[in-house]
Parts: sequence; C-alpha cells; structure tokens
Amino acid sequence: MRKLKRNLLFLSTLFTVGIHAQIENAELEKKFDNQLSKEHIGQLIKEFSATPHHLGSKRTKEIAEKINALFQQWGWNSSIETYYVLFPTPKHRALTLLSPVKYNANLLEKTFVDDSINQANGGLPPYNAWSADGDVTGNLVFVNYGLPEDYEILDRLGVDVKGKIVIAKYGKAWRGIKGKIAQEHGAIGTILYSDPSDDGFTKGDTYPKGPYKNEWSVQRGSVMDMVVYPGDPLTPGEGAVKDAKRIKRQDATNLLKIPVLPINYRDAQNLLQALSGKVVPSEWQGALPITYHIGGENDKVHLSVSFDWKIVLAYDVIAKIEGKEFPNEWVIRGNHHDAWVNGASDPVSGLSAMLEEAKSIGQLHQAGWQPNRTIVYAAWDGEEPSLLGSTEWVERHADELQKKTVAYINSDNNGKGFLSVGGSHALQGFINHVADDISDPVHPISLLERKKLHSELKRPKSDTTEKFSTEIGALGTGSDYSAFLQHLGIPSLNLSFQGEDPGGEYHTDFDTYADFIRFKDPGFLYAEALSKVGGHAVLQLSEDRLLPFNFKELGHAIESYVKDLKSYINRTQNTILRQNELLKDSAYAYAGTDESIYPITRQDTLPKINFHKLDSLIGALSLHADQLNQYLKNTTNLSKQDLAILNEKLYQAEQVLLNPGGLPNRSWYKHVIYAPGFYTGYGVKTIPGVREAIEQKKWDQANEQLIVLESRIQDFNQYISNLTNK
Amino acid sequence: MRKLKRNLLFLSTLFTVGIHAQIENAELEKKFDNQLSKEHIGQLIKEFSATPHHLGSKRTKEIAEKINALFQQWGWNSSIETYYVLFPTPKHRALTLLSPVKYNANLLEKTFVDDSINQANGGLPPYNAWSADGDVTGNLVFVNYGLPEDYEILDRLGVDVKGKIVIAKYGKAWRGIKGKIAQEHGAIGTILYSDPSDDGFTKGDTYPKGPYKNEWSVQRGSVMDMVVYPGDPLTPGEGAVKDAKRIKRQDATNLLKIPVLPINYRDAQNLLQALSGKVVPSEWQGALPITYHIGGENDKVHLSVSFDWKIVLAYDVIAKIEGKEFPNEWVIRGNHHDAWVNGASDPVSGLSAMLEEAKSIGQLHQAGWQPNRTIVYAAWDGEEPSLLGSTEWVERHADELQKKTVAYINSDNNGKGFLSVGGSHALQGFINHVADDISDPVHPISLLERKKLHSELKRPKSDTTEKFSTEIGALGTGSDYSAFLQHLGIPSLNLSFQGEDPGGEYHTDFDTYADFIRFKDPGFLYAEALSKVGGHAVLQLSEDRLLPFNFKELGHAIESYVKDLKSYINRTQNTILRQNELLKDSAYAYAGTDESIYPITRQDTLPKINFHKLDSLIGALSLHADQLNQYLKNTTNLSKQDLAILNEKLYQAEQVLLNPGGLPNRSWYKHVIYAPGFYTGYGVKTIPGVREAIEQKKWDQANEQLIVLESRIQDFNQYISNLTNK
Repeated sequence: MRKLKRNLLFLSTLFTVGIHAQIENAELEKKFDNQLSKEHIGQLIKEFSATPHHLGSKRTKEIAEKINALFQQWGWNSSIETYYVLFPTPKHRALTLLSPVKYNANLLEKTFVDDSINQANGGLPPYNAWSADGDVTGNLVFVNYGLPEDYEILDRLGVDVKGKIVIAKYGKAWRGIKGKIAQEHGAIGTILYSDPSDDGFTKGDTYPKGPYKNEWSVQRGSVMDMVVYPGDPLTPGEGAVKDAKRIKRQDATNLLKIPVLPINYRDAQNLLQALSGKVVPSEWQGALPITYHIGGENDKVHLSVSFDWKIVLAYDVIAKIEGKEFPNEWVIRGNHHDAWVNGASDPVSGLSAMLEEAKSIGQLHQAGWQPNRTIVYAAWDGEEPSLLGSTEWVERHADELQKKTVAYINSDNNGKGFLSVGGSHALQGFINHVADDISDPVHPISLLERKKLHSELKRPKSDTTEKFSTEIGALGTGSDYSAFLQHLGIPSLNLSFQGEDPGGEYHTDFDTYADFIRFKDPGFLYAEALSKVGGHAVLQLSEDRLLPFNFKELGHAIESYVKDLKSYINRTQNTILRQNELLKDSAYAYAGTDESIYPITRQDTLPKINFHKLDSLIGALSLHADQLNQYLKNTTNLSKQDLAILNEKLYQAEQVLLNPGGLPNRSWYKHVIYAPGFYTGYGVKTIPGVREAIEQKKWDQANEQLIVLESRIQDFNQYISNLTNK
Repeated sequence: MRKLKRNLLFLSTLFTVGIHAQIENAELEKKFDNQLSKEHIGQLIKEFSATPHHLGSKRTKEIAEKINALFQQWGWNSSIETYYVLFPTPKHRALTLLSPVKYNANLLEKTFVDDSINQANGGLPPYNAWSADGDVTGNLVFVNYGLPEDYEILDRLGVDVKGKIVIAKYGKAWRGIKGKIAQEHGAIGTILYSDPSDDGFTKGDTYPKGPYKNEWSVQRGSVMDMVVYPGDPLTPGEGAVKDAKRIKRQDATNLLKIPVLPINYRDAQNLLQALSGKVVPSEWQGALPITYHIGGENDKVHLSVSFDWKIVLAYDVIAKIEGKEFPNEWVIRGNHHDAWVNGASDPVSGLSAMLEEAKSIGQLHQAGWQPNRTIVYAAWDGEEPSLLGSTEWVERHADELQKKTVAYINSDNNGKGFLSVGGSHALQGFINHVADDISDPVHPISLLERKKLHSELKRPKSDTTEKFSTEIGALGTGSDYSAFLQHLGIPSLNLSFQGEDPGGEYHTDFDTYADFIRFKDPGFLYAEALSKVGGHAVLQLSEDRLLPFNFKELGHAIESYVKDLKSYINRTQNTILRQNELLKDSAYAYAGTDESIYPITRQDTLPKINFHKLDSLIGALSLHADQLNQYLKNTTNLSKQDLAILNEKLYQAEQVLLNPGGLPNRSWYKHVIYAPGFYTGYGVKTIPGVREAIEQKKWDQANEQLIVLESRIQDFNQYISNLTNK
C-alpha cells in the first residue's frame, strides 16, 4: 500500500488515541479480512434482490427469517423482534389532464427483458407512501422543485397555488417535504417527477443502455414528514409493540392532508407541455424538450389516489455475541433489509456487506474468539417507508441503549468509489484511522488517501485555502441512524462508497441485480471494502481497552458550524442591505428585466445575534478536550472497573448535547448539533435550533435556542472536565 | 427627468471637458429631437425589410438607390460608391447521415404565415458564406462549441478529428473561427447548428408563438477568417474598385479550405441521436432530448456544398453636409443596409434610426443651419458577408480618412433595453454625457442612469466592490467600425440598445417586420432613442469648439486591461502549479472520476513577464493626460487656426497607438489596444499582441509584443505631452 508522506504526518497529529490498541487488533483484523468473500457477498445480493420485498410482503418476512437463520448458522445469538406498524399501500391511482387537452397518465414503470418483471411479481407500483387519500380536481401549477424559495418566486410572479394541484421536480431537497410545503401554501395535491435535467438522458445513457432513468422510470418513496418524527406515526416516541398505545391517524402530526403522486417524465412531459401561463424563470427550465410554463387558468388536472392503511408486521433481526470483559457495553451495527422493489443497491448491497462482516465475526467466534464488548448486528425492516424497524426498536429499548451503546454504525445502499462517512465528530479520527488502514480495492492507496485526493480534485480552482479534506459529514436523516443519534444521542457513524456509480435506479423497478452488476459495483469490490470498514470499526470498538473518542474534533466541528451560521447571517444581511438600497433607487422598477428576481418590498435587516458567549464556550470545549486527551494518554494503570466507568462516561458524553425538550415543534429531535432540516428533509441542519430560527426570521426563538445551545455546551464542558478531575 | 444625486456627482468628476459646448448645443439638439418621428422610423423599417436584400441582389441595389434619393431629398450631397467584391452564394447544399442509420438533412428553414415567404422571394437559403466548395464523406464527431478548449478535451479523451467531419454548436465565440479551428485540427468539414440550450425552446416560446428559434430555424453568417483581415478577400488593404489589383482566391489567407454548413436543430438532432462513442463530458450536453455522444467508428456523414464565386457590386451610399468652420474635419456616422434575408432587426432597425437622424439634420440644414465640421453619413453594403462595403471604402480613402476623421460612430441592429456602447475610451466621458442628457423612452430616468442601475442589478451578489458601471466596452469586430478603428486608429464608437429584446431571429428567415414589432422594439421607442444618441453625438462632435477627447479615461482602460492580463497569468500559473502537484500525487489516476478534466501531463509553469516598464508608462500616461486636461480648460483664447491644429492633434492621437507592422500573422490589424481575438472572432482581445502570445504560450513573441506596446505608449505619452508644451 502506497502512502503519502503528508497524509501520515496529518494522521499522527490528528489521531493520538488508540494507536496502541489498533496494533493489538491487527492480527484479529487480518483473520477477519481473510474470511471475507466478494463472491459470497454477490450471492447474497443476488438472492435477496431476486424479487420485490417491501415491508409487509411475504417475501420480506422470508428474508428476515433467512437472515436470522444465517446469523444463527454463523454462531450468533439471533432472533426476530416484531413490531406492528401502520403502512399504506396503493389501492387506486389515477391522474388525468382534463384541459387544455385530455391526457391519461400512464403511471406505470415499464419493465425490461433483463430484469424481473417486478410489479407483476408482487412489487409496489410507483407511489409516495403516506400521501393522503384524495380525489381532487384543480388547476395545475409548475412549482420547480417545490421548495420555499420557489414559492417566494411564484409569489413575486403573482401566482398562488391555493386550491390548485402543483407539479414539482424531484431533487434539491428530500421529496418528503415537498407535499408539506405545497400543503402549507394551500395546494390540494402534489405531483412529483424526476426531470431529466437531474436524473435522465442529460446525465448519460438511460436504462437499459445506461444507468440513468428513462422516460418510464419513477422514483418511489416516503413523504411522511419525518423531520417531525420518524417511525410508526401512531406510536410517537414509543415502540410499536402489539399492544402499544396508539394515537388516531388524523392526530399524527407527521402525516400529510393532501395527496402526493410520483410520475415518470413521459407523463410529466405530457402535462407540462400543455401548460399555458407565464414562461418559467430561466433557472426553472428543465431538460424536457419544451418551454416550461407556470400554468394558466385553463390547465386542469384530476388526481385521485387511495391507500390501504393497514397495520403490518415489521421484522427486525437482532443478533448478538456477548462480550467477555464488558458485556454491558454494546457496539451496534445495522442495515435495513426491506426495499421499495427489488432493491439490489438499496438496501441489499449494504445489507449483504454487513452480513459478510457478521459471517466473518461469527466464524472468529466459532473458532473460540470472544469480543471484549458485546457486538450487536441488526437487520432492520421498514426503513423505506420511514425508518420504522429501527425507530421502533430504539424507542422500545431507549433506556438500555442510552446506558449501554458505545456506538451505532449504520450502512444502507452501497456503490463504488470513495468512502463517505457521516456522523458523530468525536469518532472522526477513529473512523479515518480505520479507513487509512484499508487499501482501496482498485488503486494502490488507502481508502482515506483516495478520499482525500478526490476531495482535492473536486475543490474549486478558486479555492486556494488548505482544506481539512478528511472531515466527516454531519448527519441529517434518511437512514436508520436517526433514532440512535438524534433521538438518543448515541455516537453514530454512517458508511458508504459512492462517487463512481451514478445512476437513476434509486427506488425504481430497475434497482435489480442486473443493473447492480453492470453499473453499481461490478465484482462487489466496494461491497467487500464496506465489510472491511464496518468490520474493523466494530472490532476496534469492541476490543479497544480505551474507547477512541476525541472531543477536540467535535469542538472543531461545532466551531465550523457556528462560523457557517455567522457567514449565512452576513450574506443575508448584505443581500438585504443591497436590495433595500436598489429599491430606494427604484432600480428594479426602472432597470430590472427578470421579474422573478425582484424583491417586492423593503426587508427588515437582521437583528444582532450575540455569539460572544457561545464562542467562548466553544473555546473552552477545545481546552477541556485537550486536557482530556492528555489525561487519556496515561490511563494504562486503571483497573478494569475504573476503565469501564471511564469508557461509559466517554460513550455517553454526546447525550449531554441532547435538549430533553427537543427542537421547536419537533420534540422527538433532541440533539442540539445535528438534525434534519425542517425544510430540507434528509439534508442536515447543524446547530439546528438556532439556525432554523434565524432562517425563519424568528428572532425570539433564535435567542431562546442560543441559550439552550450554550447551556448544552456548558454542561458538556463540565462533563468532560469532570473526567479529568477524579 | 429624475436624476440620481450620486450619478451627477459621478459625472461631474468624470467629465469635465465639453460641458460648456454642450450647453451651446442644447437648442440645436432640441430642434433635432423635435423633427424625429418614431412612426417614420417604423415606416422605413417596414419598407426596407419587406423583402430579402442581400449583397448582390437586385433589391439591395434598389435600397441603396432609395437611400441615396432620401439623402438628396433631405438636402445632403449624396452619391453611391460602387465596389467590385467577391461574394459566394450557394449552388448546391446536401448533407446525409450514411450510417448507423440513413437521414437526409432537410437544410431548409420553414416559413410562417405571418412573414413573407423569404426564400421563395429571392432570399438566400441557410449557408455560411466563404465556406469552401467541398464534397466530403467521413466520420462525424461532436465537438461541443468547436473551440480550442473543446479540442483539448477531445485530445484527453483520445479522440481526434483528422479526416473527419465535425458538428459544433453555434455560440460562445464567433461562428467564423469554428471552421478554421476544425481545419487546423485536420477536420475535412464542419457542420454548425444552434443548440436549443443556447437559442431555442429552453429560452422561451419559439417562433411564431415566441421570439426564440424553433426546430426549423437556422442562423446564416460569414465564416471568413475576418480576424486575419475583413473585406474583399481578393484585395487585402486596397479598395476593391473595378480595376483594383486582385490576388487569386486560393492565395487569400482569410478563406477556409474546408466546407462549413449551418443546419437547424431538427436536422442536428437526427444526426446527434445517431452518434455512438463516449458520452460527452457533462458540460457539453445540450438541450436536445437525447444523451449526447462524441461519435464512433460507424457514424458517417456525407457533406457536399458548392458556391457561385462571383464578383458582385457593393453599393455604399455616402452623404455629406460640408462644415462651414472646419470643412476638413469629418464626423462620420454609418450603418449597413444589406441583410442576410429581410433583416428587419439586422440591419434595418439601426439603418432606419440613422436615416431618421440624417432626415432631421438635413432639415436643419435646409432651414439654413450649417455644421461647424463636415458631417458624413454612410449606408454600407455587404457588411454581412465580411464588412465589405465599409472596409473597401476605408481602405480606398485611408489617407484622407486618417487625416480628416474626428470620429466614426457606428450602429447596426438595434433592439430595446439598455444603451450599449463600445469603442475608443478617450470618448467614454463624451458619450456617457450624451447618454445622460437623453431620457429613457419608457422610464423617467436618463439612458445613462438606466444603464448604470441595470449594471448594478446584474452585479453578482458576491461582488461587493464599487463598480465603474458606466465603463464602455472594448470593440472586437462584427460590424463596420473595424476598418476605422483597428486598421486606421480612428476614434470609433458603436451604439445599440439591447437587453430587453431577447430572441433567435438573428440571421434567420424570421428577422422580419412581423417579428420586430412583436418582440424587438414595438412602437420603435428605442430606435428613436438611438437616433437621439447618434444624432446628439454627431452634432456635438461637429459643433464643439474643442473636441471632447479625454485620454485619462483611455489610460484607465489600458491600466485595467493590463491588470486583467496579470490576473489571467496568475490564475493560469496557479492552475498549472496545482495540477502539477496533483499529478505528482497521482491524484488524477487514483481519484479522478471525469477523464475529460484530466491534465495528461505536467505543464511548464509560465516564465516571468516583466510588466514593470509598461506599468510606469501607463502611470506616466495618466499624468500627461491630467496635464493635457488642465491645459484644455484654458484654450478659450486660441485662434481658429490654432484650435484646428489642436483638434486635429486630439483626434489623430489614437493613431499613435497603431503598430505599422500590425499584429503577428495579421498585419491588417494595427491597433495595439483593441483587436478581435484570433480564436474568439467578434470577441475583443485587449492589448492583443501581448495577450494572445501569452495565451498561446509564445514567450518570445510575448516579449516582442510587450516592447511594441511599450514603444506605442511611450510615443503616445510624448505625443500628448507635446500638446501642452507648445
């Protein structure tokens, strides 16, 4: 393995804790690696993606049972936990353009000879789970991506969507918030489609010639308002066991009141080319070969959808190998097993890589090895509709998990290319070290080095600053880490390979084995690499005498988020000042040419937000973290019991950053550093309480949330400084 | 008229010369304005654009005669000067895709009910004038815009065009260089088309519903290598009178050796969707509803074109009113009259506005007024093929023009919106002052104020610097100022309104009166505004006792061009350094994902270019210009004869910036500050000798050209300092 000198240098300064333990683990990891098999991962992918297997289907239960049997066969103590969750599936879907011309939308995906005929095989047709039932007729309005800024422009154009049906492109933000935003603006229905400018022929050849969406492909997906709370909408905050207390469906605050339906871009073109009204602002134009219009008086559609709102069983497979030294310290690894259709990539690629880890760890165990800490592997059901399996399990076992869980390591769909890591920044040095010890399967450098070089290549030419290019991302939502991290404050990481496997198969009929072996990860090279990263991370966390948390890095991350926020405030302020100045000169009225960009009225400037105290608390965090890191270098003489106490304190530290009251209007989300954005969905908002209040111009709330954040960091500082004062 | 305070303040510091004279002219301008008629301009546009009238056509001769008669009717001393120029028109055009499928290109524009049926009416079909005759068969290769950077990427993709036929998008740079660049790379033919991403349905509704190109529209135009020399290719540097000495056509260095043909995007789609080979780099994808490919082994076309290479007569109409005080000082105003087809916008809108000026000045003259200086109005023929009429006239009368011409003021097609001015920066303050004294026809502010506000609105939000937003542009080529400015060093200005009249009618069948009154300038408001700007400029230049040249502003412009060039050098250097660094780490090989962006090999860094002397010469220019401006404030006591000598020195000053040897490989272009780019065509390259040598990495030439530039500025400094030392 070729190493770059400066990379090693970089790591030695970055990561000083755990090097010793890592050397002890090397032998174990070597054995672990030798038992991995790309071919076996490929067999698992082929088997589990052979037919559709969504939550509630017969096949999904069979797969859960198969996974459970595999765990047992590999020596794990495995069982299935069952939850009773609401899950709507389509009974009726119809969409008709009534005028200016009549067109009945096809609403189907076409299947292809080299794939299973999925829908005929029990697969779900294209739909958005958690759409309301509805039968609505109204004017059709094109709303670009359907985001708040798009409605602002519509407002400036004098277009409102009250009582109308909107059609929005997929993309830019999570689909799930688009119906909510339309509903907030008074729309009575939402149609979603993938514009070929984002996902289709403009990106490359379409399926089956290439991996991109063809005119018949449709992305399915949840439109539950997961940013309020994920999981079963009837049992917020509680595990959905058979006899759990359930709220009424109409009282669930994360469910829409209007219908939402996804369509293919062939249907979309038939609707959009009929629209009259104004030509859209230039940046709204998509890649269909028409001039896009907003929609006029005479453009009417009829949308009708209804669903079977039944309670189904979700099968979580939970497998354990008990730790010999610290059985009450759990390292948890998870990936979901349910898919929207066949799901070769999502989730079977990640699932199969994870099962391969479990196979190898099980073989080590069967050969006599026992981990220091307890290892838990989980295959979640019902992730696709709204993280059902993981959320219900976490909610049910919350107290035990907060007490015992060292870390949760998640994966989901996996492609090929560059290691992408998001999660708790106190584990940043740890996971980067893991990645630097594993060779890329194609190039003679480590995974970390490759990621770093790629980040250098992608850096804009204008950006000549030195970058910390191995920084891990912050997590929003969109996979099973959400309940662990954002609800319970359990240190979490999410792993995947991506960047060299573009395609439009996500949540479509053609996310199949045939597609996967051509375009996603031929030879399963990066699936095996994922097994190595996941497996090494689990083994090190289970074996390291002292857990590898580094709060200095968490401090860095928080500091950079505050800097981002200040820069957002500055930019916004400058824009408002400039617009007000131009309004004073009547510049828009006298010299504007694109009315869509006009500010209509003078805007108030932003009040001053005082970050002084927060800045000094973050400064203190850094100092305390330094002291703790110094202290942790000299813990070799600690008794097993004292070590257990210290480790427990380390892995529970992030829980101090939970606000028990949660975020405004969404108390389920308690982490003050990371949350999915209220108007971005999957996309993370860091220091979300303060940031979203500012973005929404709620100044009192911003100051309240700033006080909450300050108090959490103050307590966190106290907490970690206590560790060194005993 | 509403004025912005800061604008007045700005002008008072900017423009200190000529205020006095302007007040004297106010009465005259008022009379001039009162005689203008929007309706009459509209009638002229309607009449002159009623049928096709290209160089060499019967109708064009009639129009020249009509213009001549109008001048005479309005009291001008007008006559027609005739030149004998080469002008190829199509005999045969054919394009067939031979494989992988057969497709015969239509090659016609469709006409529309509300327009004249232009081609049936004697109009030229879509073609590129000065294409070589040719009958070629070869592989088809898509080359994006067909610019040097595109061939660099093809090279990195391992694709060469030797012996092949290329298809390129119109746009980004002047069409005329695209055949040349293809030829330099070994291509045997070039096909051009307007991609709808640049000009078509993505911009708005297509003709006839809206103003943008539909799938049947084709832009005609010249592909003479005008950046070598414009005008008649057989008489370089000489007026093409009947018995002029002519070179052989094959010896003309500005004529292509390969055929070039423009097609509509319907034909283009039929070719492009058949191409195999690699998918194009993402930024090359256009807006046709296909995935664009580079082209493969089996993709073959046959292109066959031939032309009638005949000598035709070009009719320049030259009208004069002799000056009473300074008859040997000429103010020249011009606009061409020939069109590609009907040319309602190009050139009839500008022509009609200019004729309206001539009408009003003629009426003043007929009422007894005589200008101080001689006023010359010119309606040029043969501009479209390659500035034939103006170039031949200027070449024929070069000595007289250099001696007598105060300034040349050009216009061409005119739309609506914002005043756009390019030209000699010593006239920047003058023309801005003219524009600040004329009210916008729609908004209650001056033309200059509106332009300034628009420039403020268009400024990127990130750009928070104070901008000199009334700076005029530098001129490349593309209209009749070229011979005046770049060949003879005569101070020139080019005027037009644009920015609120987007459309795709340029050089197509639908540049008609019907289109013009819907989309270009309904009511002829901005045509009349052009008459005012042109007329006021002419009248002030003819009447001002002291000519309004300000060389301080020329110095500013040169300084900013040098700054631009240094910043280009810095950027290029930084890019090379960074790429070399990344190559050293094998970053592209190990972590690149888009091969089109790969630098193949290490590049040499740029050698140091020493701008020290140039910088200090530009500093001195600024000081000398200040001294001159001070001196010019106290010239009220000069005798008429001394004043004539001083004025002559002022208007001839820019000729000191001519390099008699001209630019490398294109000696016709002699101006050291402004030239069309060798690889951009119409697009200007400022300080072209030095800049293009650096861009082409010819370091010796760069240093030679720097010495030329230094010597021209040194002489210029001497010249203007002599004016104050007498």
